[in-house]
Amino acid sequence: MENFIYHSPTKIVFGVDAEKECGREIKIHGKKVLLHYGGGSIKKSGLYDVVIEALKNEGIEVYELGGVKPNPTLSMVYEGIKICKEHKIEAILAVGGGSVIDSAKAIALGAKHKNDVWDFFSGKDVPSNGALPVGVILTIPASGSETSVSTVITNEKTIEKISYRNQINRPVFALMNPVLTYTIPMYNTCAGIVDIFSHTMERYFTNAEDVNFTSELCEATMRSIIEVAPHILKNPQDYGSRAEIMWIATISHNGILETGRIADWASHKIEHELSAFYDVTHGAGLSIIIPAWMKYVYRHDLDQFVRFANKVCNIKNIGSKEEITLKGIEYIKNFFKSLGMPTSFEEANLPSDKIDIMAKKATKTGPVGQFVKLYDGDVLEIYKLAL
Amino acid sequence: MENFIYHSPTKIVFGVDAEKECGREIKIHGKKVLLHYGGGSIKKSGLYDVVIEALKNEGIEVYELGGVKPNPTLSMVYEGIKICKEHKIEAILAVGGGSVIDSAKAIALGAKHKNDVWDFFSGKDVPSNGALPVGVILTIPASGSETSVSTVITNEKTIEKISYRNQINRPVFALMNPVLTYTIPMYNTCAGIVDIFSHTMERYFTNAEDVNFTSELCEATMRSIIEVAPHILKNPQDYGSRAEIMWIATISHNGILETGRIADWASHKIEHELSAFYDVTHGAGLSIIIPAWMKYVYRHDLDQFVRFANKVCNIKNIGSKEEITLKGIEYIKNFFKSLGMPTSFEEANLPSDKIDIMAKKATKTGPVGQFVKLYDGDVLEIYKLAL
Repeated sequence: MENFIYHSPTKIVFGVDAEKECGREIKIHGKKVLLHYGGGSIKKSGLYDVVIEALKNEGIEVYELGGVKPNPTLSMVYEGIKICKEHKIEAILAVGGGSVIDSAKAIALGAKHKNDVWDFFSGKDVPSNGALPVGVILTIPASGSETSVSTVITNEKTIEKISYRNQINRPVFALMNPVLTYTIPMYNTCAGIVDIFSHTMERYFTNAEDVNFTSELCEATMRSIIEVAPHILKNPQDYGSRAEIMWIATISHNGILETGRIADWASHKIEHELSAFYDVTHGAGLSIIIPAWMKYVYRHDLDQFVRFANKVCNIKNIGSKEEITLKGIEYIKNFFKSLGMPTSFEEANLPSDKIDIMAKKATKTGPVGQFVKLYDGDVLEIYKLAL
Repeated sequence: MENFIYHSPTKIVFGVDAEKECGREIKIHGKKVLLHYGGGSIKKSGLYDVVIEALKNEGIEVYELGGVKPNPTLSMVYEGIKICKEHKIEAILAVGGGSVIDSAKAIALGAKHKNDVWDFFSGKDVPSNGALPVGVILTIPASGSETSVSTVITNEKTIEKISYRNQINRPVFALMNPVLTYTIPMYNTCAGIVDIFSHTMERYFTNAEDVNFTSELCEATMRSIIEVAPHILKNPQDYGSRAEIMWIATISHNGILETGRIADWASHKIEHELSAFYDVTHGAGLSIIIPAWMKYVYRHDLDQFVRFANKVCNIKNIGSKEEITLKGIEYIKNFFKSLGMPTSFEEANLPSDKIDIMAKKATKTGPVGQFVKLYDGDVLEIYKLAL
């Protein structure tokens, strides 16, 4: 087991009406609050009014920045930072899914620094002055950003999508009401499920030793995702299933499943080029890349892939280790298909003419992945396996 | 799934030499520190010197209270509170296992109040002024107290052993070096393993619905305990196995496995009378009570016990549900025996003449258990099944 530091202080309030706690919770951190949200669905659903009322009840001074889009942009982050600095904002309340939360985290960092926030992402600079506290009302379970250390921002000018991980990025609270997720379109629900699965899978395949316990936890998590998904497809308003996937999403990405392990993250980095170049939904990009990544790397540790096939994919130990592994990969591919997700460039109607450039960009700062280190040539092969 | 609040802000530093961080970590919370420890084994092992050096290096003013014994006493807690108040102590550093940490938590509560700390335990009063920050260097993985909300104190005068749960009891940090656990005597190691198992099991059997995910996590945890235990018995100085059990102990009791569930806690409450009356090691008391509790309650939800037998005890689905369940219970009993733990009063050389009084005391404030509510007559039957 690897040495580790684990510190996940985000307070979770989970269940019916959790969002109504936003006034009381944000007040602990500040009275001048930036309310940050997406394309306006929270106004249609009535959530916006509930939030405003709860904030007003606690005497919070509210500033607003709506309009965050999937693959949140640096330009929006700059806009948020400007508002925070101008009005001396003390805390940010993000109402939405991963894009809104990631945008809020980046704004929270930038608001506390004179430096260009993008330099933290690109690795040119490190934050020296913390971040504004970010509270979350989660409406889309997928990214795990509500408790995670990461924020992923796209720089539209340079076509770079970069993930920045730092303990100070963790939100101070997350309010999670599964009922709010009933109306997520099924495509987005399913893209979210792939993302959740990937967050556990990226931590599961590892070269760390003596980590059977966390391997068991990862397997339990992946099995639970596969178990609950069809119930959501069948009945999007089933509270129990929506609650399960919402909580799985958080646990998959709050770091607990990574303790003592060395996580991989190759699939995410290879996928990031897909969404940066083609604005593909992150989960759909992952469902294309993951099976191809698996096919490319499994020989590195066949026993681990056999265990995965046995314990996660319920594949019996019949045939060679390679056959069992390939059945496991096929099982995951079919699981993604059952969610209506693409598992190839072709199924997603993506052109293949840029895969050379994408492979180079993905490995610009060095090889990707810890399970197997992948250079541009390797990444290109993975794109080819995914065509 | 039940609504829940989950907030576990304890910072974990895990791995070789983690204890050396104690000066830097405690300094964040205070410069006047009470160093609290047990019977002196930390002096023999050299840990005491390491800690003192790390504290002095950071300019910490150190006060000391050693001598905590298993089943920590209220009189020692009062002594600690007196020292804290006299010297205006700002933080407590607990170096030891569950007894020392629980004692430190109770001192931390009492030090911030004029009220009698025992009234918080007995339910006569509630804390209004928080608690001193408690940091931990863990030397015995078992109680999970290093991140948990609980502290269990024995009032020697009234022969009452009471657990008090409150969010403010969570330590601010826990330094966990598996190497420090190499020298724990095998009996105590194994009693700890039973305790760890029980912390997950008490959360596993539940009447909550739509909790497959956390059920899976609990099963993964219990399987991991059963898997790793023989490796520790065989080689007490195997880093990987000691690290696994140390981390399992924390996860078993930090509340994550209870999210959305209704935990039971009957076995703990029934056991507490054993340790209060006979000063039995907590884990040894649990290994006596748990199989008897299972035998008494399994008919309440046969399907859950069949799942337990299948997934945790690896019992095949052959025979009636009752037969499968009883095989599962036998498997757990044998697991405890393999650890050298007693599974009956007789094996522990305990008299049976007080079980009537014990059953009444265990249920003094009402029935125990949430899975099945048990009254004094039920508890008496469980003691009888355990004779």
